[in-house]
Amino acid sequence: MRDALDPDILGALAALAGREIAQVYLVACGGSLSIMHPGKFVLDRHAPMLPADALNASEFVQRAPARLGPGALVILCSQTGTTRETVAAAEFARSRGAATVALTMEPGSPLGRAAGHVLRYAAPYTTGIPIDPADSNYSVLYMLLAGLIRQRGGADLTAPLLASLSALGPVIEGARSRLADRLDAYALRVKDRPVVYTMASGVNFGAAYSFAICVLMEMQWIASQAIHAGEFFHGPFEVVDRDACFILLVGLDPTRPSEERARAFLQRFGDPANILDLDAATFDLAGLADPWRAYLLPLVFFDVLWDFAHRLARLRGHPMLTGRRYMKKITDY
Amino acid sequence: MRDALDPDILGALAALAGREIAQVYLVACGGSLSIMHPGKFVLDRHAPMLPADALNASEFVQRAPARLGPGALVILCSQTGTTRETVAAAEFARSRGAATVALTMEPGSPLGRAAGHVLRYAAPYTTGIPIDPADSNYSVLYMLLAGLIRQRGGADLTAPLLASLSALGPVIEGARSRLADRLDAYALRVKDRPVVYTMASGVNFGAAYSFAICVLMEMQWIASQAIHAGEFFHGPFEVVDRDACFILLVGLDPTRPSEERARAFLQRFGDPANILDLDAATFDLAGLADPWRAYLLPLVFFDVLWDFAHRLARLRGHPMLTGRRYMKKITDY
Repeated sequence: MRDALDPDILGALAALAGREIAQVYLVACGGSLSIMHPGKFVLDRHAPMLPADALNASEFVQRAPARLGPGALVILCSQTGTTRETVAAAEFARSRGAATVALTMEPGSPLGRAAGHVLRYAAPYTTGIPIDPADSNYSVLYMLLAGLIRQRGGADLTAPLLASLSALGPVIEGARSRLADRLDAYALRVKDRPVVYTMASGVNFGAAYSFAICVLMEMQWIASQAIHAGEFFHGPFEVVDRDACFILLVGLDPTRPSEERARAFLQRFGDPANILDLDAATFDLAGLADPWRAYLLPLVFFDVLWDFAHRLARLRGHPMLTGRRYMKKITDY
Repeated sequence: MRDALDPDILGALAALAGREIAQVYLVACGGSLSIMHPGKFVLDRHAPMLPADALNASEFVQRAPARLGPGALVILCSQTGTTRETVAAAEFARSRGAATVALTMEPGSPLGRAAGHVLRYAAPYTTGIPIDPADSNYSVLYMLLAGLIRQRGGADLTAPLLASLSALGPVIEGARSRLADRLDAYALRVKDRPVVYTMASGVNFGAAYSFAICVLMEMQWIASQAIHAGEFFHGPFEVVDRDACFILLVGLDPTRPSEERARAFLQRFGDPANILDLDAATFDLAGLADPWRAYLLPLVFFDVLWDFAHRLARLRGHPMLTGRRYMKKITDY
């Protein structure tokens, strides 16, 4: 078990120690942006001294926020470190005098070289090789943020985070095996459906977002949208009928009542067989400590959903990683 | 032509003048939340002294941001002033000592009564009675923000705003009549399609969002999603084929290159007949002054899109305002 933050994270924090930080920007694209929303959620909850914003990388550069300057910390993420917009965002942030920390699997990548500090993480999805979830992008981001909150005079949330990260692997494996039969049945149910929505709120919204845009749309060419569970009742719920398909994440953060309200509506007006609700209250979360217990759930949900996606891909004959028409097949756009 | 901010706005600003404001929260639900994203865009661009956040009202209350307190200003919006979550957000914000300003059509409504200050706006959509767009929710929000930025030592952007608001009506009417034939053709084209996406970035994202969730999904039961033009290339673009239907807003704010990039991709890989791109560069914007010229475009786009929606509704035989199954038909959810 880790008993301290990783040396590279401590190194980045040490370099930041003398700086005023009046604003944090969490900047990335697509799946990497999806982890920034929970990062902002954690800062919003626990860091009254750190206003935080999560922005798509091109939006960040073009918007050129007036608060971006020497008093800003910009945290960026790109798996390969080659995402052009994110590299440009790092360069732009540095040109404005901001501190920059990049998360990437490839520290020698353009993003790794563009940022002032670089933190390496691991991802199982592209390689297929299992990783310790404590080494994932979420985990590294949370360690960085916990260290930053402690450094800026907030609560020291690092000990429960480190303990939780050590317990995370079995929690994820438990949820995956417990849900395997339901995932099989749901994949069969929706394999030919044109639209599958995802829904969540709070710290889980990013997982719903990335599953909609990076898996259902990108990897399976299925129409989707991540609906915020609180926004659901202000428009989107009108699409609900007995045929509507929804994947709903029900977590344990303070927004759970919104997710529960959405579930009750879907169960009442939809066909329960078309609703996959993944409820963290049914998971064995032994070893996860507050407040991270709730904040680490996106990792659990996402790994479960990834299993579902593989089942769906097999049934549809649309391979997850090679079934693309544009991404990494054409580059001149 | 207005030569000063409205008295009620000046009154709210006067009441705020003595307060420290270290954080602005822009809080609402659905269509009213959609105007808060451009509000945040304006603050991000022009108010280095005011960190700003736009949040769904239930998310705001449940997240209970650590920066919410006496140093916060919470701006809320609800057309009828009866949106339960938004009323609760106003009460929650006041209980934390924050200053609150509500925008609503009904100052005597629960939201109007819950907030410290209330600003009235007008909307044509529910009544069908044309309004001066200078009295709309966007306009009132922008006047409030322009006044706030001036008060806090930022640039005085009120004069170009007031001039632009006076010119807005003819600009909108011009765009509507110029685009009428294209809207007719596109409504015929997509009337039986299961999925119609919307796309924009920057200050226009809110208009794309509200058209997707409040019009296509809510009023026409058509599957939709508002895709951020910068995020499009990180997943969603894989759904593009010759049958894919997209409504794209191409504005004039600094994120225009992202919207143009998305358009080029759609024109290359989609069927141009299935793409409705509304390009502000083709509009007659006489009288709109920088920087508001770009920031007022969501109002132009939305009125044009509303015309399109009426055409679509007629062709589909699905009435815009009564064709609901849940909203205002059941209340126990």
